[in-house]
Amino acid sequence: MTKTIKFTKMHGAGNDYIYVNTLAYDISDPNAAAIAWSHRHTGIGSDGLVLIGKPTTEEADYRMRIFNADGSEAMMCGNASRCIGKYLYEKGLTKKTNIRLQTASGIKILNLHLTADKQYVASVTVDMLEPHMDVPDQFTGTIPDLSTYNLPLADSKQIRPTFVSMGNPHFVVFLDKDKIKSKTLSLTDEELTTIGKELEHNAAFPERCNIEFACLTADNHLRTRVWERGSGITMACGTGACATATAAIMNHLADQSKPVEIEMDGGTLTIEWRNDNHIYMSGPAEFAYEGEILLQQ
Amino acid sequence: MTKTIKFTKMHGAGNDYIYVNTLAYDISDPNAAAIAWSHRHTGIGSDGLVLIGKPTTEEADYRMRIFNADGSEAMMCGNASRCIGKYLYEKGLTKKTNIRLQTASGIKILNLHLTADKQYVASVTVDMLEPHMDVPDQFTGTIPDLSTYNLPLADSKQIRPTFVSMGNPHFVVFLDKDKIKSKTLSLTDEELTTIGKELEHNAAFPERCNIEFACLTADNHLRTRVWERGSGITMACGTGACATATAAIMNHLADQSKPVEIEMDGGTLTIEWRNDNHIYMSGPAEFAYEGEILLQQ
Repeated sequence: MTKTIKFTKMHGAGNDYIYVNTLAYDISDPNAAAIAWSHRHTGIGSDGLVLIGKPTTEEADYRMRIFNADGSEAMMCGNASRCIGKYLYEKGLTKKTNIRLQTASGIKILNLHLTADKQYVASVTVDMLEPHMDVPDQFTGTIPDLSTYNLPLADSKQIRPTFVSMGNPHFVVFLDKDKIKSKTLSLTDEELTTIGKELEHNAAFPERCNIEFACLTADNHLRTRVWERGSGITMACGTGACATATAAIMNHLADQSKPVEIEMDGGTLTIEWRNDNHIYMSGPAEFAYEGEILLQQ
Repeated sequence: MTKTIKFTKMHGAGNDYIYVNTLAYDISDPNAAAIAWSHRHTGIGSDGLVLIGKPTTEEADYRMRIFNADGSEAMMCGNASRCIGKYLYEKGLTKKTNIRLQTASGIKILNLHLTADKQYVASVTVDMLEPHMDVPDQFTGTIPDLSTYNLPLADSKQIRPTFVSMGNPHFVVFLDKDKIKSKTLSLTDEELTTIGKELEHNAAFPERCNIEFACLTADNHLRTRVWERGSGITMACGTGACATATAAIMNHLADQSKPVEIEMDGGTLTIEWRNDNHIYMSGPAEFAYEGEILLQQ
């Protein structure tokens, strides 16, 4: 059977997803749709597919399910959740500026910052809850051996590669600015692909892992590149930015009393680790275009 | 001023463009639109923008203008012209199965092959006119020095890198199957990017050049990868397939009395060099989806 599905393409700091309102359109096989539609030449082209729908609990206003470009279901995506805040408000699905969003890693609170005329959402702050440094089911307790790579690592006595879970697992590797020749103070696509792919599948991570490479380039400001499990290089990763800021504070590279800026390929996200022990992420969300596609199922 | 533009995303062998009917929507700055819209994360995502419109001559039925992802105007694209045949017929803009299409490199004849119910276009053959081996304004008469690259070149006494113009310039480099370790019998993305970019800008090509790497893998069948000037790696290039088949026949690697299959990343195109000295290219064309985007100008 063939039917037409309306979708919206949005991005948060260049992290781009296809958004479908499942109150209007039923996607019976979201894994297959994510794979076909995410293809950048023959499909719609995206980092993945986000389904917006009815929550399964009264504690939430809406529910988000997110599928990577390889069809696997992700637990949470900070950039996508900001886009959902903008989507729900600007499409008139809610008048709230505090939205409780159900995700596979719990309910997230979105705080919308409106423009002066209250018509548009200028930016969104997401309560990303508490970071976790010890997640036995996703982590064996060992750290991958980085000595086999020719990486400009930050001083290993003071600063250590750090595992942080923000609902999904992240491994943050700190690089030393003075050891890096590249102008971007980060890795090339080739280095990121080779090392990122190997680390994602390292035996230390039974459920695979997202990998961040971060370099302190100014006070409380880290240039960061991301390798996302299931997606590869992405322009930005919201939970990755939270994990990087958390790891930087833990390693005394950044000051917890001020916001930490994480500069990714697609833009900068501002991260706060507040006194309630929650991580708050702020950043932009943008509409790209509206589309409709035939779904064959 | 902001207005909404409807577009169609199509691909021919994975070579994907945004198609806009300029009879319905005026695009006053197509170069800027091509750059913004082609961006794969923040725009629509494409190899470029194709404008379908009224011809400036009575000799043609429709006109095509094509803009690369970097905003430069291309002369012609075989994959795009096949898509235009499908677009015009299936959207009811013509009932003809022979369409005269005005392009920046002359009028091309599209021959549509319909499905049995005559509702759909199954494939399109394009008369790509005569190939040219000597185009002084695009070519200095010198051949780039390939010895600086560690390329598995085909025997240089028998088989030579060959310049062919199909309206746009192509430089075809033949590789030796037995010297290649890769399973795809071609180059990796990294090799293609490094060498393709350098050759595109080689002093031998004052107007830059498209680069093809081709390897004979079966009788009249060449595995080919493409570096397009202004776009980089693309999944297929129609004029590149024509140039590769022409160069293969000239170098006695392929037999002119039979169709030559050019297998690119996104699919296989069938090329014939017929007795009228014209090159005929046949291959698929597919709709991906319909969209609409805000144009700010």
